[in-house]
Amino acid sequence: MRYLSHEDIDNFHHIYRINLINSCSGYKSANLIGTISNDGIENVAVFSSVTHLGSNPPLLGFFLRPTTVLRNTYENIKSTGCYTINHIHQDILQDAHHTSAKYEADVSEFDKTNLSSEYKQDFKAPFVKDAPLQLAMTFVEEYPIEANNTILVIGKINGLYVKEDLMEDDGFINLSKANIATINGLDGYAIPKLKTRFGYQRPKES
Amino acid sequence: MRYLSHEDIDNFHHIYRINLINSCSGYKSANLIGTISNDGIENVAVFSSVTHLGSNPPLLGFFLRPTTVLRNTYENIKSTGCYTINHIHQDILQDAHHTSAKYEADVSEFDKTNLSSEYKQDFKAPFVKDAPLQLAMTFVEEYPIEANNTILVIGKINGLYVKEDLMEDDGFINLSKANIATINGLDGYAIPKLKTRFGYQRPKES
Repeated sequence: MRYLSHEDIDNFHHIYRINLINSCSGYKSANLIGTISNDGIENVAVFSSVTHLGSNPPLLGFFLRPTTVLRNTYENIKSTGCYTINHIHQDILQDAHHTSAKYEADVSEFDKTNLSSEYKQDFKAPFVKDAPLQLAMTFVEEYPIEANNTILVIGKINGLYVKEDLMEDDGFINLSKANIATINGLDGYAIPKLKTRFGYQRPKES
Repeated sequence: MRYLSHEDIDNFHHIYRINLINSCSGYKSANLIGTISNDGIENVAVFSSVTHLGSNPPLLGFFLRPTTVLRNTYENIKSTGCYTINHIHQDILQDAHHTSAKYEADVSEFDKTNLSSEYKQDFKAPFVKDAPLQLAMTFVEEYPIEANNTILVIGKINGLYVKEDLMEDDGFINLSKANIATINGLDGYAIPKLKTRFGYQRPKES
């Protein structure tokens, strides 16, 4: 195996380092976060850090850097109190990834891609049309992370839209039935196929 | 599409709810976290919440519940200041998932499965032998999450062992070359195959 020390990592060219460190945590969730400003400008951006925090209450978190383009997402969430999480699937991979480009705050990525927004019930933030799984999220709290000046944003699931055929009898959502993507590193995408479910584990007797 | 409201989610049987909410964030990283107590008792447990926080410094975070069996992991990290993150791959899926069983603190999961520990250089925490990607982590800081009493643990990558053939020229680690797993929900596993890399995105001119 190749060993890379902390000193090696520090000394790599920064492109090499971001590719390496972004790949080394494992497969990541592939989501589009949709928001709208108080002026009515829609924003949609790819995130790979959406993480399950707990089921009761149903909470998800994600990390963002306040100093990048993603600030649009953050400012919209803070001013409206809501956002959507939409799953990236095979048919929209390229457009979804393109939302990582650094557009100015007055440009909507919905206008620069074939992604379309849609509104459901009275929820203020835009969903991504045709996403097989769409979550309406309410902002709960945030934590500034001292170690690197990122922000952990925590939201509660306010409602969930899911394609019927993904739902299994015990509540499990089979992501692979909708060709939902996962992210490797900064720009690698895969469409996993479910291999197995192992069930709840109890200690072995001996 | 099926719509599940916040009230629906609250009213589901708790098994249905944990399956649903654990599946709805998307694909998750599949890692074994290895620790050792000051008494020399090894611990290894599956985690699906390891998330990339930033590349410079190289930081990863994960969430845990202090009130469950995973406390062993937490207590060992706090007392020794270190832990390992080891990627779950196809050959060890069943044993890796079994580490979610609630063993007593004086039982090592290495003794209850075919997983083996190994030690490298002078790093105190045990790695999982034969994992294609192994990270030596140093504890940096923690954040108690008020919304649900979980803890965000942040660590710095102190060193990284990676199988040679996974490394690409630009630093990208191709996880699929080692049949590394991803997790869907609580107990679903998939072995993704890399489909495409799209590269760095710049705004479109028009």
